[in-house]
Amino acid sequence: MKLSELGEFGLIERIQTRFRAPDGVTGIGDDCAVLPQSTGRDTLVSSDMLIEGTHFLRKDIPPYDLGWKSAAVNLSDIAAMGGKPTGTFLSLALPADLDTEWIDAFMHGYADISERFGTPLLGGDTTASPDRICINVTVLGECPYARARLRSNAQKGDVICVTGSLGDSAAGLKAILKGVERDVEVQRLIDRHYRPVPRVPEGEELRLNLGVHAMMDLSDGLGSDLQHILDASGMDAEIDVSAIPLSLALKHCCQRFGWDPLALAVSGGEDYELLFTCTPQAEALLTVPHFVIGRVTDRAHGPARLTWRGTSSPLAPGFDHFKKGK
Amino acid sequence: MKLSELGEFGLIERIQTRFRAPDGVTGIGDDCAVLPQSTGRDTLVSSDMLIEGTHFLRKDIPPYDLGWKSAAVNLSDIAAMGGKPTGTFLSLALPADLDTEWIDAFMHGYADISERFGTPLLGGDTTASPDRICINVTVLGECPYARARLRSNAQKGDVICVTGSLGDSAAGLKAILKGVERDVEVQRLIDRHYRPVPRVPEGEELRLNLGVHAMMDLSDGLGSDLQHILDASGMDAEIDVSAIPLSLALKHCCQRFGWDPLALAVSGGEDYELLFTCTPQAEALLTVPHFVIGRVTDRAHGPARLTWRGTSSPLAPGFDHFKKGK
Repeated sequence: MKLSELGEFGLIERIQTRFRAPDGVTGIGDDCAVLPQSTGRDTLVSSDMLIEGTHFLRKDIPPYDLGWKSAAVNLSDIAAMGGKPTGTFLSLALPADLDTEWIDAFMHGYADISERFGTPLLGGDTTASPDRICINVTVLGECPYARARLRSNAQKGDVICVTGSLGDSAAGLKAILKGVERDVEVQRLIDRHYRPVPRVPEGEELRLNLGVHAMMDLSDGLGSDLQHILDASGMDAEIDVSAIPLSLALKHCCQRFGWDPLALAVSGGEDYELLFTCTPQAEALLTVPHFVIGRVTDRAHGPARLTWRGTSSPLAPGFDHFKKGK
Repeated sequence: MKLSELGEFGLIERIQTRFRAPDGVTGIGDDCAVLPQSTGRDTLVSSDMLIEGTHFLRKDIPPYDLGWKSAAVNLSDIAAMGGKPTGTFLSLALPADLDTEWIDAFMHGYADISERFGTPLLGGDTTASPDRICINVTVLGECPYARARLRSNAQKGDVICVTGSLGDSAAGLKAILKGVERDVEVQRLIDRHYRPVPRVPEGEELRLNLGVHAMMDLSDGLGSDLQHILDASGMDAEIDVSAIPLSLALKHCCQRFGWDPLALAVSGGEDYELLFTCTPQAEALLTVPHFVIGRVTDRAHGPARLTWRGTSSPLAPGFDHFKKGK
């Protein structure tokens, strides 16, 4: 069998069944691993890889932005647990003919976001690549014992919320790939694709509220990511598509170019907003910017079911790295 | 300027000056980062990347061995500090047309070494690569506070030791690349290249001996790696080349194929033996298998100087990923 048939989630499942995490440890399957320490704080760890040609095109993305984004997508995984990031490790495979100016700009972007979130670069690896740039970042973080928000804790009656507008990043990528002229609005979408801002303080604040039950960051797209929460929690859900927050820039650009904003918001991915479920009582008291987009319902039967209210068009499922190119 | 002119160590220096580790933390520049915890134990972290075409050829290395080696080279970094590895994180970028049998064998090798050293796989990332396989492993470990052995602590009068024979791995690689027929001795060399055994228990035992001052693992080759210790410690050194341990398999194969065993032992790399310096008194009491190959001398002047005794041929400096292909 080829990997393209197995798919990304089939592969993860296969690896997961072979490796059992020790007792008390959350291993493979959430945004971060959660490792309890005798200090009363849990260590959080996550790792993300970016490959030229899969995740970015060198001719398109400015190296500063790539450096920023490489750290951002990892910090976002710590945010997704409600944790505080403490440091990062960067592995870089680079072609020998790369200009050092490129590397300096990359490190500049990486340094700027590291400073903004107080996360020093503590180590990593540098090596040669025959052609493609390959980047891996591992981030460490921490949070109080047993307070990290997992995907598996969504509860019946919870409302489903996101911290910001969805689809901008996917529209930005579309604009880049189609070579659309970059006016202010288009550039805004592209910026959200190239320089995502991880929701670190928002995640920490949500973690303090015990009514917030399940949380993750939106990297593959709302459809796919919410499905992970439902699978892990054994719940169903309904989403009111009219409640999904869309930016004005996205709406305008979709009108101008004939794109479907809902498809971008639901299946586009790389929003790096937080997706969480919480009790309606807790939601009423939240001070973190957020939008209620649906609710968690009891599992009817069979696999977790996600219902989209307010649309007649079928919405695409989530993104799978091995099943379709990007 | 191109990266090929700057070189790997120029790049690391450039990154190092931009990112300062917080007080009390050992960041970039050793085998691992060392992060003190309030528990009285230090957390050790290291990350290593393996790229198809740079570090391995898919048609040559059996996937089981690649899985084994990916974990081994990282566990070796924890061993190099005298630490105990506690868990790993694996990022895998794979082409979509890869057979799942390949992946299963890879994970089998990874699982076997993980079990042998008690290091569960706790997380990571899976993603698509347009062509080349790209692997990154991050390993976590621990050791008692301030007991990790850094590169920077070699002291005048120390003897210089290695835990095993050098050059086998480089000869194994040479045999693979030249397509030499694989009899028992050749296969032994190839096995040392494909399935290195990280010196984890040896490193922990050496850490218990306070006379052991500086330590690292041999990945780039004795010449290059010892130079790192000398640079970091501000010392010079003399190596007696006749004392460098060479395996019988290496000697035989070098005779048969006309290879230079000393060049392989000094500049070959990927031995994953431990290189350490310690007082002669401490050395006399060591129970870990080891060979004394030289001694640390006072810095005369200028940059650290490494003298090779017992050879008239100039020995190549260490390996630089960006300056020459492999």
